[in-house]
Formats: sequence, structure tokens, C-alpha cells
Amino acid sequence: MTPHAGPDVRAGAVHPWTVRVYWEDTDAGGIVYYANYLKFFERARTEWLRTLGLQQQALRQTSGGMFVVGEAQVRYLQPARLDDLLRIETRITALGRATVTLEQKAHRQDPDGLTLLCEGRVRIGWVQGPSLRPARLPEAVVRALGTAADMEQESR
Amino acid sequence: MTPHAGPDVRAGAVHPWTVRVYWEDTDAGGIVYYANYLKFFERARTEWLRTLGLQQQALRQTSGGMFVVGEAQVRYLQPARLDDLLRIETRITALGRATVTLEQKAHRQDPDGLTLLCEGRVRIGWVQGPSLRPARLPEAVVRALGTAADMEQESR
Amino acid sequence: MTPHAGPDVRAGAVHPWTVRVYWEDTDAGGIVYYANYLKFFERARTEWLRTLGLQQQALRQTSGGMFVVGEAQVRYLQPARLDDLLRIETRITALGRATVTLEQKAHRQDPDGLTLLCEGRVRIGWVQGPSLRPARLPEAVVRALGTAADMEQESR
Amino acid sequence: MTPHAGPDVRAGAVHPWTVRVYWEDTDAGGIVYYANYLKFFERARTEWLRTLGLQQQALRQTSGGMFVVGEAQVRYLQPARLDDLLRIETRITALGRATVTLEQKAHRQDPDGLTLLCEGRVRIGWVQGPSLRPARLPEAVVRALGTAADMEQESR
Repeated sequence: MTPHAGPDVRAGAVHPWTVRVYWEDTDAGGIVYYANYLKFFERARTEWLRTLGLQQQALRQTSGGMFVVGEAQVRYLQPARLDDLLRIETRITALGRATVTLEQKAHRQDPDGLTLLCEGRVRIGWVQGPSLRPARLPEAVVRALGTAADMEQESR
Repeated sequence: MTPHAGPDVRAGAVHPWTVRVYWEDTDAGGIVYYANYLKFFERARTEWLRTLGLQQQALRQTSGGMFVVGEAQVRYLQPARLDDLLRIETRITALGRATVTLEQKAHRQDPDGLTLLCEGRVRIGWVQGPSLRPARLPEAVVRALGTAADMEQESR
Repeated sequence: MTPHAGPDVRAGAVHPWTVRVYWEDTDAGGIVYYANYLKFFERARTEWLRTLGLQQQALRQTSGGMFVVGEAQVRYLQPARLDDLLRIETRITALGRATVTLEQKAHRQDPDGLTLLCEGRVRIGWVQGPSLRPARLPEAVVRALGTAADMEQESR
Repeated sequence: MTPHAGPDVRAGAVHPWTVRVYWEDTDAGGIVYYANYLKFFERARTEWLRTLGLQQQALRQTSGGMFVVGEAQVRYLQPARLDDLLRIETRITALGRATVTLEQKAHRQDPDGLTLLCEGRVRIGWVQGPSLRPARLPEAVVRALGTAADMEQESR
């Protein structure tokens, strides 16, 4: 299996999360600085994981491991500005033994609808211990993610 | 009048706002990086201003001016950690013709109560136009802040 | 022409730039937060542009336009830690009428050599005026980039 | 002794450090975001400590402790803009058994001289172990700081 979902992978449900654009997010161009979408995406992933019962601080204390990002791809379509309300969508598209791949989108949430601003794909792995050596996802994590994704787990 | 509230200033009501600590907020010490409390404070001020009907992006377009911070004082009492839920309190303590002074506090919001982590005082001024020259607060702003503060406006 | 360099594109020379990892760059995992490599990359691009005689603040004042990132792809291979010295390499791989594509790498700079930590590809476009409408790169920019890249400019 | 230098404290020499303003540092107001001066200050403190032979990552591994900021006061006088070159000055003003107090200034470095943009006072303490319990500064740290400061160490 490739880290990115093939056509036969039934992707998980979309998890929506909302955030406002504050001064800190913008730059002198008057728009959200490009790296900050990765912050929005990470916050949304954290909240998505929490809906699955996974709290990363607790996970780390019990398992000694943590998620790390292995790859991120982002396309910037339209700029966001101060005070915009953004809807960040997170959707699992592939689950392997050692990695999870997510599709994430940032929309501007206007009274009359959504405008897609930015979309990305993020592949996340698991590392163990102080050495941060790559490792298989803990069973509990796989179970939680697999359930959420409502898709067959694939070996990788 | 000094920029900081004297004893006879009836301070405004506390505006509460909640935020979670994400990975981006922490540093290798395992705690929230000290500068990031100023981000939390600014977000909370933005939401507080919105409850008063003041939207900064719109203000800037209509008035050509914006708020800038003139002074910030922060005391760090206890560290916040990943996944902590923080309650940021904002309270106006003085309102002059050209500046607003706020008291802001960050508490950790535990099931059994609040723990004060960090408290600050922020003095904010107004600047006008591309030159960013200091100026009096616009009338609409003073009115909104004055109402919220439920306190007598003082000349400065 | 695709936005990414084809095999016949003679890529530009590598521009090196060095930066230390500070507390702000790290997270509670003890490593550099994934979004912050995009900050390092952007700083390195700024310094690379300056070596070509392009200063972005001045460019904006004279041309009314600015660069914006259209796409970013990042692979994270090894983590960076507090106090690490990073060597950020920037290399132009494609130049179109409206976009520039760069390859960027972050190495840890140890006494005994370099270790590749992170590599990315960033496609940058140009936007004009307050509307931020996509536009062709200004002639002066194309000339500076084309010279630096020592490659034939391709239409796109 | 108070945490802030009294008149009889011979303050240390000024440590200068230079940094450019990049896009990430600015906000939609076209100026450096107020919290980011605390980042500049922290980077400058790190480089200052390194000149004294103190590397924080190594310190933490050998001593199990680290510096934390206890208090920060910042006054913002003039804004910095994209591409500005800033000179950050760091100077020790008090050294106690458990805290160090520093004065830090950010100047814009123009061809014709320096313009003071922002000045701050930062009190730093030491915490030990996973509990982050406040503790006395390690002997090696006190010695390095005391020498640098060229001032008598005061009990506190």
C-alpha cells in the first residue's frame, strides 16, 4: 500500500473545526502566512483525535511515543484575511501499520457559503521513546483511527 | 491620569475566552513558550472587542487606523502544557483618549477549578494611516469601550 | 511547462543560509515543529532574493505586487533539536512567466558533516495590488531570477 | 535585593546580536507583531549565553534543569517593518541565587544610525526536573553569569 489512499480506500467522515484568523496569523501582505495553515491543520487534527478518544499528552505518558509528521503537501488557492472565520476539514484517507494519511482543507466560512482557500495532504507516523525511532502505531491508536475511518485497515 | 487604572476607576466586567494548548504553543521544555501567552491575550482581546461590536479589519477599512500595543507586562506563575484548556480573562482597567489598558489572565481550567498561570497588563494605543502616527481613539471605539467598561472616561 | 522542473531545466546554483534552532522553533516533542521549517525556508528565500538584488519590501512599494506561495511540499526525514545549527539550501528549479519553483533543503550542520533533515519544493507566484490578483512576474524579477538560475526562461 | 537592579549594581556589558525582519515576524498591520519581540529577545539571550559558554540543550542534559521566564515587561516605541535589520542588545542588570534579570533593547539598524524600537526587562529563573520546581541557579551558571556581568553576586 502506498501512503496515499488508493481508489479502493473508503475514506473516513469529514471532521469540521472552526477557527478565526487573528493578527498573529497574518503577515505584512495582509493575508495569512503560508506556514500558519499547517498550524490550523495541526490544531484540527488534535481536535479530531480527541473526538476519537485520543489525547496526545496522555498517549505520550502512557505509551512513551508520539505522532510526527512525515510529509505535508499544501496548495494555496485563495488568501485568508484578518477576522475571517475558517472551517478546517480533516478526513482520513489511508491507514497503515505505521502511518496515517489525512486530507485537510481550509475554507472561508461566509454567510453565503464556503470558499476553499487551501488544501493539503499530511502523512503522519509514530515515533517511540527519547530516540524518536519510527515505530508501529500503538494498537489503541490503530483501533481508534480504524473505527473512525470506517475502512479496512491495510498492511503497509 | 496614568495609563494604569487608579483606585477610583471602576473596572469593566471580565470577558472570558477559552483556548486549548496545541503543539505549536509548546516548546522543548514541555511547556507553553513565554511569548505565546501574548498571542492568547491578543486573541482574547479580539474576541472581547467583537462582543463590543468592534471588528478590527472593518475598523481599519472605515477609519484607516488600528490598535497597536504600547506596553505589555507579563508575570508567569505556573506553566501550561499540551492539551491544557486555558481560560483567558480580559478586563478593561483604564480608558484614556488615546489608550486603553487591560488586565489579562490565563488560568488552567481543570475539572476541579481554575489555576492562575499567567497574568498581564497591556496598554493599547491607536495609530492612524500608513504613517502609523499615534492618534486619539475614534469616537465609536471610545463609546464602545466606555460602555463596556461601565466607567467614567478620563482625559489623558 | 509544468510548475516543477523537467529534466532539461538547468537548475540554479545552491544558495546556503545558516540558522540556529531556538526555543520558539521547538515543541513539547523536543523537536522543531513541522510548520517552522516553512519559516526557515522562507527566511532562506528572502536572503537568496537579496543576493539577487531583490528586496521584497522595496519591490512592493515600487511595483505594488508581491510573491505568494502557491504550493509547498515538505518531507521530514530527521528531527532537529534545540541549539542545532541548520544549513538551509535554496535552489531554483523552474522559472515560468508567473511562477518560480524552488527546491529547499534543511541540513543539520555537525562538525563532521551535514545530515539532511527535511526537504521541500515550493512554487511561488506573483500577485498584484490590493486585490492580490495573480499576475506575471515583473520584468526586473524575471531578469534577476533568470540570471541567477543560469537557465533558459521557459514560457508557461 | 529586588529582582531588578538597584543603583549599586554594576550592570554587565551589552551583548549585541543582529536579526532581519522576515514575513513571519510581521502582521497585517505591516509591522512586527508585538509578541515576536519576545522571540527576538529570547534568541539574543541564547546567543549571549553561548558567548558565556552556556548551551541550554547541553545544560539540560547535564543538570536536568532549565531557564524559565518569570516576568517580562516590554515597551513598544516605534514599529519595525519587513526587511528591517534589528540590533538586539542584551545586558544583565541583576543576578540573584535563583534569578537573572536582563535589560533588552531592539533597535532598527539604519545606515545612519540606530533607532530604538522596543525595550524590555526580563526576569529569568531556574526550574529543576520533570516537576519544573523552581530551584537555585546551578553553580556553573552563576559563575558564568557573574563573570560576564562583572558584578558582585547578591544573595536574594
